[in-house]
Order: sequence, then structure tokens, then C-alpha cells
Amino acid sequence: MASAQEQRPVNLMPVPASVHSGAGQMAVDASFSVAVTGRDDARLERAVQRFLYQLGRQTGLILAAKPADAAKATLVIHTDHDSKPVQELGEDESYTLEVTATGAKLTAPTTLGALHGLQTFLQMVEASANGFAAPAVTILDKPRFPWRGLMIDSARHFIPLEVIRRNLDGMEAVKMNVFHWHLSENQGFRAESKKFPKLHQMGSDGLYFTQDEIRELIVYARDRGIRIVPEFDMPGHSTAWFVGHPELASAPGPYAIERNWGIFDAAFDPTNEKTYKFLDQFIGEMAKLFPDQFFHVGGDEVNGKQWNANPKIQEFIRAHGIKGNKGLQAYFNKRLQPIVAKHGKSMVGWDEVLDPSLPKDITIHSWRGPKSLVEAAKLGYHGILSNGYYLDLGWPAARHYAVDPVGEGAGDLLAEEKARILGGESCMWSEYVNAENVDSRIWPRNAAIAERLWSPQEVRDPASMYARLEAVSAKLEWLGLTHRTVYGAMLQRIAGSASPEELAALRTLADVVEPVKDYDREEATTAQPTSGTPLNHLVDAVPPESAAGRHFDELVDKYLAASCHGDGAATQLRSELTLWRDNDAKLKPLAQRSFLVKEAAASSRDLSALGAAGLNALDLLARGVSPNADWKAQQLSIIQTVEKPERQLLLVPAPAVGKLIEAATSGGACARAR
Amino acid sequence: MASAQEQRPVNLMPVPASVHSGAGQMAVDASFSVAVTGRDDARLERAVQRFLYQLGRQTGLILAAKPADAAKATLVIHTDHDSKPVQELGEDESYTLEVTATGAKLTAPTTLGALHGLQTFLQMVEASANGFAAPAVTILDKPRFPWRGLMIDSARHFIPLEVIRRNLDGMEAVKMNVFHWHLSENQGFRAESKKFPKLHQMGSDGLYFTQDEIRELIVYARDRGIRIVPEFDMPGHSTAWFVGHPELASAPGPYAIERNWGIFDAAFDPTNEKTYKFLDQFIGEMAKLFPDQFFHVGGDEVNGKQWNANPKIQEFIRAHGIKGNKGLQAYFNKRLQPIVAKHGKSMVGWDEVLDPSLPKDITIHSWRGPKSLVEAAKLGYHGILSNGYYLDLGWPAARHYAVDPVGEGAGDLLAEEKARILGGESCMWSEYVNAENVDSRIWPRNAAIAERLWSPQEVRDPASMYARLEAVSAKLEWLGLTHRTVYGAMLQRIAGSASPEELAALRTLADVVEPVKDYDREEATTAQPTSGTPLNHLVDAVPPESAAGRHFDELVDKYLAASCHGDGAATQLRSELTLWRDNDAKLKPLAQRSFLVKEAAASSRDLSALGAAGLNALDLLARGVSPNADWKAQQLSIIQTVEKPERQLLLVPAPAVGKLIEAATSGGACARAR
Repeated sequence: MASAQEQRPVNLMPVPASVHSGAGQMAVDASFSVAVTGRDDARLERAVQRFLYQLGRQTGLILAAKPADAAKATLVIHTDHDSKPVQELGEDESYTLEVTATGAKLTAPTTLGALHGLQTFLQMVEASANGFAAPAVTILDKPRFPWRGLMIDSARHFIPLEVIRRNLDGMEAVKMNVFHWHLSENQGFRAESKKFPKLHQMGSDGLYFTQDEIRELIVYARDRGIRIVPEFDMPGHSTAWFVGHPELASAPGPYAIERNWGIFDAAFDPTNEKTYKFLDQFIGEMAKLFPDQFFHVGGDEVNGKQWNANPKIQEFIRAHGIKGNKGLQAYFNKRLQPIVAKHGKSMVGWDEVLDPSLPKDITIHSWRGPKSLVEAAKLGYHGILSNGYYLDLGWPAARHYAVDPVGEGAGDLLAEEKARILGGESCMWSEYVNAENVDSRIWPRNAAIAERLWSPQEVRDPASMYARLEAVSAKLEWLGLTHRTVYGAMLQRIAGSASPEELAALRTLADVVEPVKDYDREEATTAQPTSGTPLNHLVDAVPPESAAGRHFDELVDKYLAASCHGDGAATQLRSELTLWRDNDAKLKPLAQRSFLVKEAAASSRDLSALGAAGLNALDLLARGVSPNADWKAQQLSIIQTVEKPERQLLLVPAPAVGKLIEAATSGGACARAR
Repeated sequence: MASAQEQRPVNLMPVPASVHSGAGQMAVDASFSVAVTGRDDARLERAVQRFLYQLGRQTGLILAAKPADAAKATLVIHTDHDSKPVQELGEDESYTLEVTATGAKLTAPTTLGALHGLQTFLQMVEASANGFAAPAVTILDKPRFPWRGLMIDSARHFIPLEVIRRNLDGMEAVKMNVFHWHLSENQGFRAESKKFPKLHQMGSDGLYFTQDEIRELIVYARDRGIRIVPEFDMPGHSTAWFVGHPELASAPGPYAIERNWGIFDAAFDPTNEKTYKFLDQFIGEMAKLFPDQFFHVGGDEVNGKQWNANPKIQEFIRAHGIKGNKGLQAYFNKRLQPIVAKHGKSMVGWDEVLDPSLPKDITIHSWRGPKSLVEAAKLGYHGILSNGYYLDLGWPAARHYAVDPVGEGAGDLLAEEKARILGGESCMWSEYVNAENVDSRIWPRNAAIAERLWSPQEVRDPASMYARLEAVSAKLEWLGLTHRTVYGAMLQRIAGSASPEELAALRTLADVVEPVKDYDREEATTAQPTSGTPLNHLVDAVPPESAAGRHFDELVDKYLAASCHGDGAATQLRSELTLWRDNDAKLKPLAQRSFLVKEAAASSRDLSALGAAGLNALDLLARGVSPNADWKAQQLSIIQTVEKPERQLLLVPAPAVGKLIEAATSGGACARAR
């Protein structure tokens, strides 16, 4: 297998369970064709059509859409049987893909595996020395976890159907199989209810999904091997329900759609029998609309203020010996669960719903930490992890990638307890995303989470992950996802009347800043953002993770590791630092003309200061001169200054420049510092 | 009006007939609203909705879609009456737009003018120092020519409806008002015929527009102030008709859809009465489908070979005293014109149809040169210019921009003759474009042609045009046109498994090459391209006009004009030339791995040679040293070598580097050379 060794690694994401490289490659040209053998499978036929369309997009080849003869086809697909009519948790998703120099064979027990195998094949096709080709390989693949989800919050900002659709395409590409659709919030009720039309009519500003649209999306998702789990959040996060139905709330109202972000007081009244009558009818309607076995009832962040303020509710708590608000929420869930079960569904709730008195047929969705997941598993509940997978927090892909649903803390679980941890879900909460930039907040980082949930636990090298993430990110563009292209368009908007040089200067700055992380965004600004705040600022445009910043950091490490002798690295560092140092002067005239550039003026000055400080350090390192006593303190104070987020932007290369300064002061010259 | 003087020029394209800048600006924020006063006009209401959507895209502002009170609205629109039910040539398209610090008023005699005025307003809104704003201004505007068209050839490569739609959006943005739809060719018959279904069923590979789709597109176009003129090309360019109807041809057949490019022999038989019976029915059907007054019958490039080879036709020519094939085509047109007229249409044909014996109710569409247009005008025919506006020839925008429908040659026409020249049309022939890259071949250059046809004749400064073209090109992206973003995606495909550094090197090369011009593409390659040839090569990806190349040329001129003392220019030139010199080494490893990069290997080597030659010249110029006798010859031979197109690619900066070499040899140092 010597020749296989010489081949470049296959850029697959998620990494399959097992990959054996073969010799040579299979040409993919205009004669490429696909045949499906065995039983009739309309869903698989549609998948093949999509696959051919996608392969055509990716390569520019003109491919015949007609199904080929199995004897002549270059790719032959065989499945044993179809998956369940309604896709179920834990169905067999495995497949085998064999590619040789003369052809490819994809076999799978069910259609689900075949869908996954087609995506694997798509990722393998690349321009090679002799045309487009897929490397010879044998892949035996299956997922590590049965629940691999993406949640999109369509409620805070309305995320329209076409955006959801292309994100489902992205999920299919990285083998995610659950779309968790967050449909109700304080800021909007987004699903049509025919039983209670005031919900969407009064609670959505006209921005909601019709039942026909929902049904179509469910078909669309099923075609891609994806289940749809709806979430209707209760008893909190519920202001929008009460605009049309104030009688369900714990305080009289009237209610208006919430325009601010945060945790609010509005909550269902768990002591009111009308609440359960209403929810029985509502859940009955939605249970028919959404075929999936699971039904998410939310349950997070009830602040209890309305309950505290309502004497009737307080009286109820006393009369029933309920333990405070936590007990009241458990009471609510104990009433809710039989309703959900009556309509044929299993209840899922955020980790606040965890209470040992509830029946075991509920699934705990952990957002606050992995602890509740372990605790739930020990108590006999199923669990899903989202803590660590919040895409809205702006973490680097590597940080999400390191989070494992059965990582630390799950170590002492028994095997059967561990098996109750079903997988995880990345979450795209939508305070600061809208139809325009949501793709850029989900992708490509979501692919790293998808890999964590699919690939063997030992697949964990961040460098390999980043290299493959770059490749998959480019391929995702062919699906119509805008995660990369929207950046340029948004910068152009910010730049207004910029000259090409000014636009380039803006880009230089934008490439090395990131939005502040976690929940710091509100704190970094004086004006509290609302749902009416335009998302057209630099912080909304720049990717959550700066590739340029990461590369700079790697370059500094390389330079220092080579005792400052890596000539190429020194030149590159100097050129980049010089660009930064001189950038503010280029950008300043534009900041006078565009308020959106002016907002970033402090960051621009900081970048120039950073460039100058880095150049100083490089000079000292190159000349082998020790700086005087004050120098280090001075330079590090520059770093401290630029590390304070200005206008919600972090200057990513600051710590790397700090390393250069440290090295320059540790004995002066780099060689001595080693 | 001192303050107006200080303002930056308004980036409008096309430049309006009259612009008077006022003082200050009008803020465009979330409170922006539009009111339509006067009569009910559903089309204008839809235009306002599109305008608000577009303004929201362009600014990121969340704008209320509801119509506002005229008393409170920030933009008030008033029209006197609607335009004709079927848009007519020469209808009033004028409008007045007044923007003050407190509000804007748009008035127009008809809806058409209001549509144009809304586009003008959209172009004016930009990020300013204090938020988004439109400058205070009074604009009185109307077009110079009544026929301002874009032709798209949907026949050679099928260009699907969604691509046509977004190009109509682009036309609206630059005030073009005729979409000329080339629907039949040797390579495809693209319109559904219910009378003769074999036309589209057998002549299109299943890629055609249904009559419902056509009707929808006509409504879509009318909403944007655009007429649709269909073209069914005859008697030549007609192979696809004959696949289903060989009985109409001048040779027996059978016929297959043509897969090659070029001029072919197939032609209608003008001597067969069945031809006219068929065309009467066919044109009758299409005349009902397409409401426009004009009907384009093609008429170009009949090579006459089938006519020569058919004894029956030769006998007919003799018997009727017809003057050869040219006479036979005139006979065909004389029979065709009454059929077109009978169905209520005016006939348009390419300039080959010009024959003084035809009635004056035909319009000559000149593709071979402006001469036929002048000739036609003198003879009393109307004319449209496309010679000089062929987008497929890859000319720079400035070259198209310099072409005027009543330019040189039209100087001696009488006023009434001149008035017969209705305007012009840019033409996008589709041998080398498809759904993926067609936008990038049309835009932004088409905006320069649109300006030529709308703006006063004296608006002709290329520098101003290019600056505004850049601004309008960015705005066009918000319409969904992919003319800029597709470049990156196609480069990524070509790059295959490239590292970020390799991708950057490919981009450096791609940024300074252009596809060969005119009809040189076939000659620059050994394998003749066909309709099955993938358009995934570097030549298909790079823009027709290299902005980087143009800027480099400007920089060289600036440097030489400053007697090599412009310090900034010297530094920039040196940095760019160094990048080029070193680029081939960076790209080489990738050329080993991707056949699509390997194809450009010669261009990459040439770019490095060019960089080295340019650096040599710069050194000499800087040191004031005269080169030895052989040096110039050597260097110029490098230029000559790289100017030979390799793999269909032109190296754009070659002439500019040539200028540096010339300067370096003209007496040695730059100072002396001046």
C-alpha cells in the first residue's frame, strides 16, 4: 500500500469511522453516471438527482441526469430497505463506500446510509493532476451518536424558509440529522395555528411559517435524512403567546411583542386549568403537524417574578405544598408531560425541567453544563448536550470541537447510563443574526460540531480539523450558503463611498477582528440593542473566527520555535505588522465619511499600535539587543489597551504580538531566549 | 452653492440629464417611508415594495413596508398617469427627483419615470458620516435614446429563468428598457410552441421556457419598465427547428441539435410555400404570446451552402430572376414581413436583412458595423446599434463606452434621419457563458453601455465612468447578481486542494489575466470547444476586465509622469512586481495537483518573468543607469513572449511593464527620459 501512503489525506468532514486508502483514483468526468440497484426508492432517486446537480456545481462538469445502467454506471448504489416512514432516533445510518480506479460502489442497509455515503463521495471529488477525481478508498462508516442536531432560533429574528432550507442542505453535507426548530419566543410566535390563530396573527408581526410551509419543510428535511423537532418554549419565553392570549399568563396583561433582548417575566400560569386545556388542544394540533417522535417544550429561564407577584399562584403553592417556583415548574411539567404523551410524543426540555419526580420518558437538553446530563443519565433520563455548542457565543471552532457529550464527568457513568446520552445540538440563538448573516454564524464552525457528534471520539486534532474545515467550507458554498460571500457584501456596505484602497484597508482591519464572545456584546455598548437594531455594523459582518488572526498566531509560534531564524516567517511577520501599522492612516479618511467605519476607529488605531509594537519587538529580536527596563511595561500596556474590546470588537492578534514582546524581553535576543 | 461644491459627486449611473447639488443631505434611517399620492397604481405600489426591500438590503435598515401618509412620508411619489398597457417605444420615461434635508419628492408624467426615479434614489443612498443618507439634489432626467436593450442568448447555452430574472433586475437598476430574448439557434429551440410542439420537444434537450413561464417573465419585465422582444432567428441559425421539422429545411436531413459552435449550413427553404404557411402559424402563436410591438426574425449569417446545393432552389432563383443568395434572402424577408405585419408586429432583423426593396416598417439591428445603421437611416429605416456592444468579445468597459449609436459616420445625417436611430443593445452571446458565469460577463460592463444609451452624449469621461461603475457594481450585488462572488467560488474549484497560500497565489495570477478578446478563443486552443465543454477553466472564471491590471497601468503612468519621483507609486510598483516575480514558485506545487491550475502554468511563468523584467527596469530607473545595448531587446522579447496568449489568457500588465522598459532605455534614468 505504498502508493496510498503517498496520497494526500482525504478531506472528509466528519471523518468516517474507518478509512482505508487504496491505490490510484477514479476519474470523474462527463461520463460519470449513477445507478440505483434493487428496490424502487423515490427518495433515493431524488437524492441522486441532487447529488448529480451538486457534483455538477462543484466541478463545472455537464453531467447527464438520467439514471444509468447498473452494468455501466460509474457509481452503483444498493440499499437493503428504506428507513422508517417517520425517521426514528437510532435508525441504522451506516454505509460502505468503495472507490477503485474503475468505479465506485455505495451500499447501505437503509436509504439513510446511502444519503450519507453520497455526501462523503461529494466531499472526495477534487481537481487532481488529471482532471476531477475521487481517490481510491474503502470507507466503513456510521455515526457515534444518534442525535446530531442544529437548532435555529427562528423566533427572535425571523429566519425565513429559504434560509432554513439551505441550512438543511448544509446539515446534510455534514451528516447532521436533527433540525431543532425554535418557533416561539418573547419576540415572536412563528408557527401558524389554525386552532388558535391569534397566536401567529398577533404574535409575529406577520412573520410566521404557514402549516403548508412547515409540511413542505418536513418533506424537504426527510429527503435529507433529517428529523424536525419543533420547540414551543413554555412556561417562560412566552410573551408572544400572550399578545393574543393574555388569559394564559400569570399576570393580567395586555401584552405586546417584546422588542428587547433578555430574560422577561411573562410566564404561563401553571395553576390555571385553562392553561392545560389550551395546551392540550395546541399540542394536539402541533403533534399532528410535526410527525417526529420528539416534542420540545423549552422550559428554560423562568424568572418566577410573575408567579411571586400573583397572590392566587402563591396561595396555590402553599395549598399544594409545592417547593417554591422550582417546584411549581416541576408541577407544570408533570401536568404537561401526559399531554405531550397523550398526543403520541416524547417530551424534550432544557435542563431546568430535570426533576426526579418526572417520568423517565423525557429527554433532558443541557444548555447550562454537562453536569445535568450526567445527573439525568444516572437518574434514567435521556440527554442531549448543547452546552459548549452555542454558536451565538462566537467561540472558535476548536473550542466547540473539544466539547464531547460523553467527555469528562461522564467517565464514571455505567455503559447503560452513557448510552442514554444521545448526542448533541449546536444552537444558533438569533439576537444578533438575521436572514442576511445567520449563515456566517453557523458555518463553517457547525461542521466541527457535526464531526464531534459523528466521528470516533479519538478524532480530535484541531490542526487537521481546521484544514478540513477550510475545505468543507468552500464546498458548502455550492449549496447556496452565503457564509463566506456575505462578508464582502457587508464590508462594501460599511465602506460606502470607499476607494478600492480604502476598502482594502477596511478589509485589513476586518480580517483581524472578531465579535466579542459569550454574552459580552450587550456590555460592550451603551445603547441596548433591540430587535429593531440594524445588524449592519462591522461586528455583524466579520466572521466569528478570524482566520488571519489564527494564521498570524501560528506564524509567531513558528518564528519563535525556530529561534527567530525562520527567514520566511520573519519576512511574513514583518510585512503583516507593517501593513497593520500603516493601516489606520489609510482608513482614516473613510472614517470621516462613513459612520459605520467611524465606529471602528478605535480598533483601527489599536491595530496600528499593535503593528508598531510588534515591529519594535521584531527589531530587537533581530538585532539581539536587550530593551531597557521600561520598554516591556510600555509595550505590554499597549497590548492591555488594545485587548479591551472597543465597539464590540476584539483585536485577535494582540496575544500573539504579546508573545513577541515577551520573547524580546526574555534576555533580549531570540537566540538567548531559547 | 459653496457647500454643494464640497460634496463628493453623486455616484449615479447612468448620469442623469441634469443634476444640481443642494446643501446638506437627507437622512435615511428606520423612520424612512414612502407615500404614493394621486391615482391608484398597483404597479407603482409593487415597485415601492421592491424599492423598500432593496433599500433594506443595501443599508441593513429594518424599514416598514406599509405605505405612509403623504403628509408624513420622507419620500413622496406623484405620477400623472400610467404608461400604455403594453409598453411602447418612445413613451415618456422622464422624472424629477428633488431631495432636500427634510424629504424627497419624485414626480413623473407616467409610472415609467417613477420607476427610473426610484432607481436613482437607491443609487444615491450611502453610508455618510452621520448614518445612511442621500445628498440634497435636484435631478431632471430623461433618456437620450428610447431603445436601450440587453440581448441574452438563451439558446446556445440555456440560461434559466431565475438568471434572466436577476438580469432584468440589473437592467432596471441601470434604466435599460428592452430585453431582447434570443430564443432559437442551431444549438437549441427554447420556447414552447403549442402549435408545433416538436420544435421545443425535439430541439431543446428538455431545456426550454414554457408559455406560462414566458408570460410570467413578461409581467416581471413590465413591472420593471422593460419590454421583451423575442427573437426567432431565420432563415439561418436554425438547425434546432429542423430536428422536429426537417421538411422546412433546404436539405433533406435528418437533423440533430448542433453541439459545435460556428456558422452552419442549415437554412429554411425560401422557395417552399410550406415554409410560409408554417411561419404564419408559428409567428401567429408567438405574436399572441409576446405583446410587444416588435418581433425579431434574426436573419444573420446565412452561408447559402444548402441553397447552392439544392437544384430546386437554384432553379427557383433562375426562374424568378433573383440575384443570388443575397437576393433569395431578400425574397424570404419580403415574404416574411407581411406575415409579421399581419399578426400586428413590426419586424426587426440583423443588418443582413437591409434591402431597399423592403417596406420601411422594419428595423435594422446592426451587428456588423455602424455603417449599415447610417445607410438604413438614410433609406428611411429605423435602426438599433449592437456593433461595439458585444459583451462576449471581452472588451473593456471603456471601449464599449466610447461607441455611440450616432457617433462618427452619423455626423452628416439630417435630424430626421438621425431620429431613426432608436438606440442600442448590448449582446450576450452564449458560446462561453452559462447559468453560472453569465452574470460576470454582463456586469458591470453593461452598466457603461446603459449609460451611453441614457445619458447626454457629452458624458464620456472614462475615469469618471470607471469610478461610478465600481460603485454601481457593488450595489448590483444586492439584487442577487453573482457577477463578483462567482469569481471566488470558481477559483476555489480550480484550486482544488490548495492551501490558503496557494489559493492566494492563484488569485494573484487570476487578478491580472483576462480571457482573450474578440473571436480569438477558438484559435487559442487546439481542442475545439463544444456545447459539452465544461466552463470551469481559469478563462471562464476571471472577469473580462482586470481591475488590478488597469490600476497597475495607471500607477506606471503616474510614476513616469512624476519623473520616477512619486515615492508612493515606486513603492507600490515594486511591491506588486515582487509579488508577481515570486508568485510562480508559490503556485507551482498546486499546478502539480490540479489540472485546472496546470493549464495556466505558462501564464504563471510569464507573470513571474514580467515581474522580474519590471523590477529590472525599476532598478535602472532608480539608479539612473543606462542599460547596455542588448538589455532593451532582451526585455522587450520577454514582453513579446508573454503577450502571446497562452491557454486563452492575456497577461494584462504586459504593456505597462513595457512602458517601464522603454523609459529605462530612453536615456537610462527616468529624470533624463522626461
